[in-house]
Amino acid sequence: MADGGVGSVTGAGFASLRPMVAPRNVAVIGASDDPTRIGGRPVHNMIRRGFAGGLWPVNPKRDQVQGLRAYPDIASLPGVPEAAVVAVPGALAEQAVDELGRRGCRAVIVFTAGYAEVDEAGVAAQERLVSMARGHGMRLLGPNCLGLFNAPLGYFPIFTSSFDNGWPVEPLAGRGRVGIASQSGAYGTHLFGAARNRGIATPVLITTGNEAEVTLGDVIGWLAEDDGVEIIAAYSEGVREGPRFLAALEAARRAGKPVVMMKVGRSALGAHAARSHTASIAGDDAVTGVVLEEFGVHRARNTEELLDVVYAATPRLYPVRNTLGVVSISGGAGVMISDAAEELGLPMPPMPEDAQARLRALIPFSNPSNPVDCTAQVFNDMSMVGAFARSMVEDGGYSSLIAFFTQVGASPTLAPKLRAELNAVRADHPDRLWCLSVLAPPERVREYEADGYLVFEDPSRAVVALAAQGRFGQAFARAPRAGLELPEVSLPAAAPDEAEAKRILAAAGVPPVPEATAASMEEAVAAARAIGFPVVMKLLSPDILHKSEVGGVMLDVADETAVRANYERLMWNAAENAPDARVTGVLVARQISGAVEVALGITRDAVFGPVAMVGLGGVFIEVLRDVALRRCPVDVAEAEAMIRSLRGFPLLDGARGRPRADVAALARSLSALSAFAVAAGEALASVDVNPVLVLPEGQGAFAADAVIELAARG
Amino acid sequence: MADGGVGSVTGAGFASLRPMVAPRNVAVIGASDDPTRIGGRPVHNMIRRGFAGGLWPVNPKRDQVQGLRAYPDIASLPGVPEAAVVAVPGALAEQAVDELGRRGCRAVIVFTAGYAEVDEAGVAAQERLVSMARGHGMRLLGPNCLGLFNAPLGYFPIFTSSFDNGWPVEPLAGRGRVGIASQSGAYGTHLFGAARNRGIATPVLITTGNEAEVTLGDVIGWLAEDDGVEIIAAYSEGVREGPRFLAALEAARRAGKPVVMMKVGRSALGAHAARSHTASIAGDDAVTGVVLEEFGVHRARNTEELLDVVYAATPRLYPVRNTLGVVSISGGAGVMISDAAEELGLPMPPMPEDAQARLRALIPFSNPSNPVDCTAQVFNDMSMVGAFARSMVEDGGYSSLIAFFTQVGASPTLAPKLRAELNAVRADHPDRLWCLSVLAPPERVREYEADGYLVFEDPSRAVVALAAQGRFGQAFARAPRAGLELPEVSLPAAAPDEAEAKRILAAAGVPPVPEATAASMEEAVAAARAIGFPVVMKLLSPDILHKSEVGGVMLDVADETAVRANYERLMWNAAENAPDARVTGVLVARQISGAVEVALGITRDAVFGPVAMVGLGGVFIEVLRDVALRRCPVDVAEAEAMIRSLRGFPLLDGARGRPRADVAALARSLSALSAFAVAAGEALASVDVNPVLVLPEGQGAFAADAVIELAARG
Repeated sequence: MADGGVGSVTGAGFASLRPMVAPRNVAVIGASDDPTRIGGRPVHNMIRRGFAGGLWPVNPKRDQVQGLRAYPDIASLPGVPEAAVVAVPGALAEQAVDELGRRGCRAVIVFTAGYAEVDEAGVAAQERLVSMARGHGMRLLGPNCLGLFNAPLGYFPIFTSSFDNGWPVEPLAGRGRVGIASQSGAYGTHLFGAARNRGIATPVLITTGNEAEVTLGDVIGWLAEDDGVEIIAAYSEGVREGPRFLAALEAARRAGKPVVMMKVGRSALGAHAARSHTASIAGDDAVTGVVLEEFGVHRARNTEELLDVVYAATPRLYPVRNTLGVVSISGGAGVMISDAAEELGLPMPPMPEDAQARLRALIPFSNPSNPVDCTAQVFNDMSMVGAFARSMVEDGGYSSLIAFFTQVGASPTLAPKLRAELNAVRADHPDRLWCLSVLAPPERVREYEADGYLVFEDPSRAVVALAAQGRFGQAFARAPRAGLELPEVSLPAAAPDEAEAKRILAAAGVPPVPEATAASMEEAVAAARAIGFPVVMKLLSPDILHKSEVGGVMLDVADETAVRANYERLMWNAAENAPDARVTGVLVARQISGAVEVALGITRDAVFGPVAMVGLGGVFIEVLRDVALRRCPVDVAEAEAMIRSLRGFPLLDGARGRPRADVAALARSLSALSAFAVAAGEALASVDVNPVLVLPEGQGAFAADAVIELAARG
Repeated sequence: MADGGVGSVTGAGFASLRPMVAPRNVAVIGASDDPTRIGGRPVHNMIRRGFAGGLWPVNPKRDQVQGLRAYPDIASLPGVPEAAVVAVPGALAEQAVDELGRRGCRAVIVFTAGYAEVDEAGVAAQERLVSMARGHGMRLLGPNCLGLFNAPLGYFPIFTSSFDNGWPVEPLAGRGRVGIASQSGAYGTHLFGAARNRGIATPVLITTGNEAEVTLGDVIGWLAEDDGVEIIAAYSEGVREGPRFLAALEAARRAGKPVVMMKVGRSALGAHAARSHTASIAGDDAVTGVVLEEFGVHRARNTEELLDVVYAATPRLYPVRNTLGVVSISGGAGVMISDAAEELGLPMPPMPEDAQARLRALIPFSNPSNPVDCTAQVFNDMSMVGAFARSMVEDGGYSSLIAFFTQVGASPTLAPKLRAELNAVRADHPDRLWCLSVLAPPERVREYEADGYLVFEDPSRAVVALAAQGRFGQAFARAPRAGLELPEVSLPAAAPDEAEAKRILAAAGVPPVPEATAASMEEAVAAARAIGFPVVMKLLSPDILHKSEVGGVMLDVADETAVRANYERLMWNAAENAPDARVTGVLVARQISGAVEVALGITRDAVFGPVAMVGLGGVFIEVLRDVALRRCPVDVAEAEAMIRSLRGFPLLDGARGRPRADVAALARSLSALSAFAVAAGEALASVDVNPVLVLPEGQGAFAADAVIELAARG
């Protein structure tokens, strides 16, 4: 299978799953003669679906299993099994994995449960399984997984009962096929069943269970490289492994394959339920969310939306500049669609004026702007529908179209005319995403789908699904994320104090508020001259903690004369109020006023590594949790996009009569901070640069305080 | 029909629609022999559905219409028609309405289009129709409407082609019936068709078209009082008439009938499309939204959600304290449901500890908290499902339950056992909302529905629908809104200045910052003593606009001695800097610091009258548009709920180390302001009290500025 078909893989990254997903032969350890038992279902399914490779049941108690010759043990198998299902309990499973490895098996699919999902002993047993598999160079799926299927090969090493209700279906001509990658077996097969009921082809399903060795990233990566799959649907309760997951998403993006993902646990209650269900260390949900966004993955809010987006991806049209045109026999439905489109940011530009005039001449009371209301007049002359639709495509140029015809789509008298009119336009413009919103029985829907339409009863659902296709197009069109040049970083052994933290960050490209220390009056004058007036002057003394209490802070120092006078006052105040303190000089700093306060930060996600954060100071972070996150490093353009995504961004953009702030400078600091975090590596636990004072455009953004925390040494 | 059945109406408010919706006989003006023509469809449908009353086609050219005796004109009808359909064009329609009125007809349903939706001449023609109808004491539906149906009577004065795909269905035993009130005919019949396809009974549909006389409020009110309908689904592009709409929603609430509404035009694009579609003056969308909320109406985001909520209302169980219990064979589905429930505020309390222990003893690896994951173990012993479900009802006490069994619900071997187990528990507890989330073909779904379950393929949709039922319960349980005692208000002839505005509002119960004018030093001292220190002192002069420029503002005046000294300084500054100004004394005001700034306001909605607004000052209103609105008047408890609903509320509640603010005082001011707005009547255009300075708890909230705008005199 390495040379073509569903199992063929281009590129190298994820090809090591080939023996697991598309093997030449497969052994079933613990095969049962009863086709409804866990060890019986895979054998039964592969017999029924005609798996062409070797299918070798292992059962010490029987000569035959479901009519196939059975083998008493692994040693007596007629050849080296490329893959094996392990469906025997506890210690026997461990023994089987070991023996399979010794015989040269390349992949094991472990159904057996009772591992890390149960208790500490299970964790230890699971670790033993993994180290055995690794020792033998085998890939291992599960344990505690439902298995997988690769339908075109008739390969069904899976114990679901879903096939009672039907097998995976073939795609309509020209439509894409969907690969399903799911941590949960129950949910993965639910998705397969729901997709099948909607006529969506899902040739491959792989469930990962405990993900002891093969993770969701491996599976998505396999699907990204599998020529038998054009669209990827995934389910996760928590991503456990970063690098392969990221590589897989990038592989899918490069291959132009949309990934639609259900990641549960976004709420506190859900996250709690997820933890008690999987007992796994997973990346923070919000961080996972921004990682998915980074790669253009559509994160679905529920199963229906996941299937809708997958379904709308099957025509494999991903318009980079997506616009929506709507033709409707109900003005109200047009309004509803407009509401949904605006909320999703899917543009609905109006029809050109001259085209509107032509259409208005055809149907006098029509409203051919966009949404185009062609009114019930079309029932008298269905050729109007064709004329309107053609004008929308050819004059309006929309990449996505929704035609709302509700029950007319099922009307015995009107539907055939409607279909003929639309098909004539569609035939000339197959490069558009055509949606019909009709109320029709399933057999009529299947006809429209065979014609090439997407069919949605609810037009609002169509809008969500169409908007997603444009975002896929944009993600596919993006250049791969370029590596940033990383600064040289050498962190100190112990956590640096504020001044040292600022120096470290300054060296990395995050400028602090300009300041200098001065040991004498003339040094202070020179420093102030270099920094620019007005300045703040502060006593420098290791013995004085609260400078303002001893009169050790002078604000609004406007010129050189004032520097001199204030230098003397500071020394006098120190002598008067803290006679025993050692005074080493003064700190001269730029006095900044009228700045917008912003916080920048770095945290380290358990799975995805350093994450950059930006938020506006004050109520925005503390009360409104208005922050933008992104995996490090971020380049300056990405940093600016993060800043612009803040709800409070108008404050930086001239709201409330302020001048526009120096967003470019802030973006440079954020990007530099993110590069610093990557360069610093795992020794860095977090950075908090708060506040950064952002001055008006062209005047810069300066860190006024900074805290760097180092990781506890392991 | 007034004496029983679908047409019977209790109460008086909306009974005047009886002759239109449930007449003893009906004339069809412009009746056609062709059953597919606009004038033919009503006759055809009523013949087919056996309308028992008189059905009198009027057609000057034929003796018979579709086998019925036809009459040449209105004068020759065999009796006075209670209702009449008008399906003749333009001037003929006007003439028909007039003649019908003269004969004593009580209700006309005008299909004819070309009125206010078209041009100015149409507006005038529509006004003539209405004044004719009013003159004759007739109710008028439309013009430009699709008509209505009242299926139990076989009464179908409507020209839709929807019945090609099926008639309204009967409800399952015990399930509620749905009345549809829709401005749009196309959307109303779309809703009917989609409901029918889901097995939902919709005995009554009324479309209002141009709403020249009968409005959506009339129709909702009729349905609220109609014994043949227990649930109301409504569609509007913009509510045009306030009082009857409000009375209708209150009638529905009192009758315990949920109203589920699609109100389109929530986005700017949608609102624009709605305006160009209906050309009507309608209330602001946001105001309409809060009015719907006030009466417990569920505003659906799309058609699917509307139908889901209506469907889940059919068991007519509206738990006031709604809690959700989830039993699942997929841990992941449980997490997904938890995410959705938390976002919708539907509580999922855990099972009691002892019950969890009992369940864990039944299935060792189960996780019986809530969601309750009973694992695939139940496939070996389906009695476990019964045991788990019973414990959830009896020990967990949940009012709503979701059982996620995906394809098991369709499995030939497992589904019958599952059904029997659940039915046994359900039979003992029919007072719970039971949802099955299964992947099953329609015929299997119908079986579960007949058993009493709600069935949703997607469990997230079930959560939305279940959460809505609890909110209905809460709305039904609320005491009717009590009238507030209104203040005596006499507005001045011209817009008042700030001081007068504050005096007017103070008299109405909105206290301003304490202040007093003083004409002498000793008056100033007495005023300061009464107000409490520290105070601010300001020069009072009609000739000085910018007081601070002449040294006319003194802050932080701490005691009586300081009052005297500052009084002298103010007088000296005036003499020095503004020698020609007339000085009438000083203003002494409480100096307030550490307050949270809040804005209160009143605007007048074109449809719903005065609307109260509250928002936090600064970025919250200007950048984040974080405001709460409510129709006036609001009592103190409602006012406090508005304040607590603000995203920025934590700032009033002790965030960022502040003391808690005097929310009670702020709520009193907001309530008083709303009562003032009602009392002031239409002469009042708007009020802006900004800022209100809210001090720490127990110290009050004071208006620091106020603007009152009067309505332009008509």
